[in-house]
Amino acid sequence: MPFEVTILGNNSAIPAHGRHPTSQVVQIHEQQFLVDCGEGTQMQLAKYKIRKNKLDHIFISHLHGDHYFGLIGLITSYHLMRREKPLHMHGPKGLLDIINLQLAASNTTLFFELIFHEVKSELVNVLFETDEFIISSFPVKHRIPTHGFLFKEKIGLRKINPDKIAELNFPFQVIAELKKGNDSEWEGKILKSNEWTLPPVAPRSYAFCADTIYHNELIKYISGCDVIYHEATFMEESAERAVLTFHSTAKQAATIGKAIGVKKLLLGHFSAKYDNLQPLLAEAKEIFSETELAIEGQTFSIES
Amino acid sequence: MPFEVTILGNNSAIPAHGRHPTSQVVQIHEQQFLVDCGEGTQMQLAKYKIRKNKLDHIFISHLHGDHYFGLIGLITSYHLMRREKPLHMHGPKGLLDIINLQLAASNTTLFFELIFHEVKSELVNVLFETDEFIISSFPVKHRIPTHGFLFKEKIGLRKINPDKIAELNFPFQVIAELKKGNDSEWEGKILKSNEWTLPPVAPRSYAFCADTIYHNELIKYISGCDVIYHEATFMEESAERAVLTFHSTAKQAATIGKAIGVKKLLLGHFSAKYDNLQPLLAEAKEIFSETELAIEGQTFSIES
Repeated sequence: MPFEVTILGNNSAIPAHGRHPTSQVVQIHEQQFLVDCGEGTQMQLAKYKIRKNKLDHIFISHLHGDHYFGLIGLITSYHLMRREKPLHMHGPKGLLDIINLQLAASNTTLFFELIFHEVKSELVNVLFETDEFIISSFPVKHRIPTHGFLFKEKIGLRKINPDKIAELNFPFQVIAELKKGNDSEWEGKILKSNEWTLPPVAPRSYAFCADTIYHNELIKYISGCDVIYHEATFMEESAERAVLTFHSTAKQAATIGKAIGVKKLLLGHFSAKYDNLQPLLAEAKEIFSETELAIEGQTFSIES
Repeated sequence: MPFEVTILGNNSAIPAHGRHPTSQVVQIHEQQFLVDCGEGTQMQLAKYKIRKNKLDHIFISHLHGDHYFGLIGLITSYHLMRREKPLHMHGPKGLLDIINLQLAASNTTLFFELIFHEVKSELVNVLFETDEFIISSFPVKHRIPTHGFLFKEKIGLRKINPDKIAELNFPFQVIAELKKGNDSEWEGKILKSNEWTLPPVAPRSYAFCADTIYHNELIKYISGCDVIYHEATFMEESAERAVLTFHSTAKQAATIGKAIGVKKLLLGHFSAKYDNLQPLLAEAKEIFSETELAIEGQTFSIES
């Protein structure tokens, strides 16, 4: 099943060098989710051929403009394109008022239902759940209430042992029990799940760590993650500025990635002062080699 | 003295075909003014190398999002870049509340003064004036209160007759009077202004007609204009839809341009349904040949 993240914007507050403010699309199994929605996100969706009508949930990490100024434009476009299905918007208190004030100014009554889910940034909140995966938010530390998002597969069913497939002439219900890990009985014979099946594929997880100052407490929320995106606004020479603005350096992001032992660390939210991002990547790689730049338009697979 | 308009966005509500929502920069003499500010305007300014710090006045025609959703991002960028000089924002009632709500959500106190001038759409308002030109708004007819903007040079001083320059040995004050059209006296001799000077260069004018249904009343506000921008959302086949949505067709825009006898008519605000704009231009040219598409990135000179 697909599990991947596509980067739509990787720059910090001031758009520069052709880079855009924060936005990502997470595809997990059959569904796509939008994470943050900086100015121009709807154009970026079009540019990278992501069908915006597949999106039903939008997650906003905090109310700094480079993370949500594109939301009202996207919502308005949904309206003009006569969207009918509901749109879920998960974000901090205050977001709905901002959207509603702008809709009222243009005398707009949406053709679809806009369902707002307030996210309490200081808590862990389950935001969306299916049989296959769960999406939650977790606190990070920034100048205003801010939270990250964790996308996590649930442990799946055990897999039929391929060596046994030829002998597998039981009814569907019996096979289903074996896949769940339950021993079963068929025609008087006990079938042991662990003989007929192999352990399920390891569940995968991806964390979007939003804007945050470097802090170790983050780790407890995302330990065991396979891939994380962590902001890396500055290089080490601006470490003081990072503290002042509640942002992180590339090295600090790498320190988090290394502590968790992720398979891949994605860096983003680059300061407008950096045209060339390679030195920033190099600094991170000194700490943790499995680091990549979250380049716009690139899709990164989440592998366990 | 330069007088020109640069197109930053020419599309209607839904961004499409790489086109952006409405925004233009008008350069008149030494000053630049931003007219409307759809989503992504700050990126378009960067793309076309227009220095945003030269802008001190922003004019917003109405509160449909494709005309102002980029404003909060631009204001935030000014703040992050430590702008110090005041920024004037001219627009309909309600605009300031929208900006302030978003600034409050991010706990932002701007480093510069944001001065809001409410434009009463139903009236003609003088918005800005120098010795050399005047900028005013005028009513148009749309679904919500909407106004256009008129940029008009004042009649300048008379020019010294080049045939007389060799004999022009009077003091500066005397010459200044002659240029103003006043006869003057020097060493007992009467100097006639119309002998020593020629009429001033004809003042030029440009009108941005915003979003509007086709209506003839518009003409009285912009008669004598040299160049006008008129929206042309639809082709004639969608004339009924134009009426329903209070927009115009290309032919209707051309009818206005022809009635005024402009030197140049610029068409914009194209519906997302048109990828190729040539048929739209062709329809307008059937009515009025001096018509051009307001292509993004192009600069059109205002000539009298």
